[in-house]
Amino acid sequence: MKDVALGIDIGGTNTVFGIVDKMGNLIFKGTIPTNAIEPATKLFERLFEKFNKVFDGYSSEYKIVGIGMGAPDANYYTGLIENPPNLNWGYVDVASTMKKYYDIPFALTNDANAAAVGEMEFGSARGMKNFIEITLGTGLGSGIVIDGKMLYGHSGAAGELGHINIVKDGRKCACGNKGCLETYVSATGIKRTVFEMLATSRDESILRDISFNKLTAKDIYDAAKSGDKVAISAFKYTGKLFGEALSDAVAILSPQAIVIFGGLAQAGELLLAPTRKSMENNLLHSYKGKIKLIQSGLSESDVAILGASALIWQELKKT
Amino acid sequence: MKDVALGIDIGGTNTVFGIVDKMGNLIFKGTIPTNAIEPATKLFERLFEKFNKVFDGYSSEYKIVGIGMGAPDANYYTGLIENPPNLNWGYVDVASTMKKYYDIPFALTNDANAAAVGEMEFGSARGMKNFIEITLGTGLGSGIVIDGKMLYGHSGAAGELGHINIVKDGRKCACGNKGCLETYVSATGIKRTVFEMLATSRDESILRDISFNKLTAKDIYDAAKSGDKVAISAFKYTGKLFGEALSDAVAILSPQAIVIFGGLAQAGELLLAPTRKSMENNLLHSYKGKIKLIQSGLSESDVAILGASALIWQELKKT
Repeated sequence: MKDVALGIDIGGTNTVFGIVDKMGNLIFKGTIPTNAIEPATKLFERLFEKFNKVFDGYSSEYKIVGIGMGAPDANYYTGLIENPPNLNWGYVDVASTMKKYYDIPFALTNDANAAAVGEMEFGSARGMKNFIEITLGTGLGSGIVIDGKMLYGHSGAAGELGHINIVKDGRKCACGNKGCLETYVSATGIKRTVFEMLATSRDESILRDISFNKLTAKDIYDAAKSGDKVAISAFKYTGKLFGEALSDAVAILSPQAIVIFGGLAQAGELLLAPTRKSMENNLLHSYKGKIKLIQSGLSESDVAILGASALIWQELKKT
Repeated sequence: MKDVALGIDIGGTNTVFGIVDKMGNLIFKGTIPTNAIEPATKLFERLFEKFNKVFDGYSSEYKIVGIGMGAPDANYYTGLIENPPNLNWGYVDVASTMKKYYDIPFALTNDANAAAVGEMEFGSARGMKNFIEITLGTGLGSGIVIDGKMLYGHSGAAGELGHINIVKDGRKCACGNKGCLETYVSATGIKRTVFEMLATSRDESILRDISFNKLTAKDIYDAAKSGDKVAISAFKYTGKLFGEALSDAVAILSPQAIVIFGGLAQAGELLLAPTRKSMENNLLHSYKGKIKLIQSGLSESDVAILGASALIWQELKKT
């Protein structure tokens, strides 16, 4: 019997799950709709009904030693999902619910933290003890690893780099504040930047033909690649602010590397080059040239499951 | 025989030392001039000559179990003092030098980190696992404690909150960057703020009679207490920026409390009230009303020695 972890990631639309071994090999995976209008207990019923059916075919070969889960507004300490704005669940005691299905070690955290643990176990941060994982999706999530351990802080919710202030009295954020980093540096952020630039500049741009609701980060990337001035400027501005924020994070945390992940990160050097330049300009002298800014080593489609399962491999190392 | 630690703090002008027991009782203390134009080895010769003389009278009663030291640009990992701008020493291998005098456990860090460890062992942060210590002197130093341990990061120099950017293209900082927090929030920072306000406002102020070089934070405090408009505005502005920076630090680190220490901190609520208000305004919703902003529980005159000695008590707990 080979030890494996069950990794589960609860998203706003879909919940994915899979069986992962200690080396990060994904044995199998599956997906079900989250269907967040139903209570969370219904989701777990459907999840384990489907999972157990599939796992039956593997159960002679593999033994599940723990369950790791990534979920929005998840608290590592309490095992609760705490009133996530995009799921209509209020507070859900996931840790207790899991025990009813499998009475084995369980660990819960948010998706950015899970990605960070996955990166450390299986990705670009293997062997690193101090790094910051940043996920650039609709928003900006971050997971901070210090001395080989996830930073959870006093509340369990540490690591919200997306909500540090980057522009005074800046753009309105979903959190209620203004000028948060994620309102500039994220797929949504760069879109807002493009619209600001379309308004203030007189440059021609193929992006002038796309509505706010239709515009995607991919459109901006494609436009920049084809030489569109506005799109290129938008990446430069995004990188400038991103680099400024990262230099502050470095002064506080002294990481070895910053690992970038998620949709917008796929723009590669178009985003990373101006980010690196701005970060270097703003770093304290002793850090200049020393902080790696690298892309994730995990595949976009599997990171949620790998990260969630990695929580368990980390947990089991502690004991 | 009672176990004690030798605490040493190297300052730009004076070096202080003292013997401290596990409860934070200071058995005796002494001071010698740092005399930084001489090589560091000379300082240690003079230091131990004086210390050994005094300790002779105590050596039948106390046993020194370790030496803790706070020093500028000190690296916990390497045991080096690394080219401090205000001491003409270059790189000094303090850990090796100490072994020649006493071959016992030795720990070295900067003064803000030492203060944080002292606060955790003997001061306002007793029993806390996650907090930020901020020392407001000529500059702004900080020590970050996570899960009961000092944050040193990859380089050993983590925790430089004084050098996060708070005003874009703001005041020139000694570090070479512009707009660093300590150029606004520190004894020097509030002085610069007063001079800016004396230039921009037309309010009468007793501070208009004092030159830049003569003006002290104490003058500004006294003026504010006597109702001076400019001085009061300067404290409000300092607190506003301080609170903004702290709310960012909270989003990243999720501390239980922020402990304020040092000359400017003695202004008490004059500084803390606007800081708290600004921090609360900018905090993520889940932290509002939950982060304590408190004054240090350590005496100004003894903190350097207590902090340095506390490094040893922490070190010995690890083993």
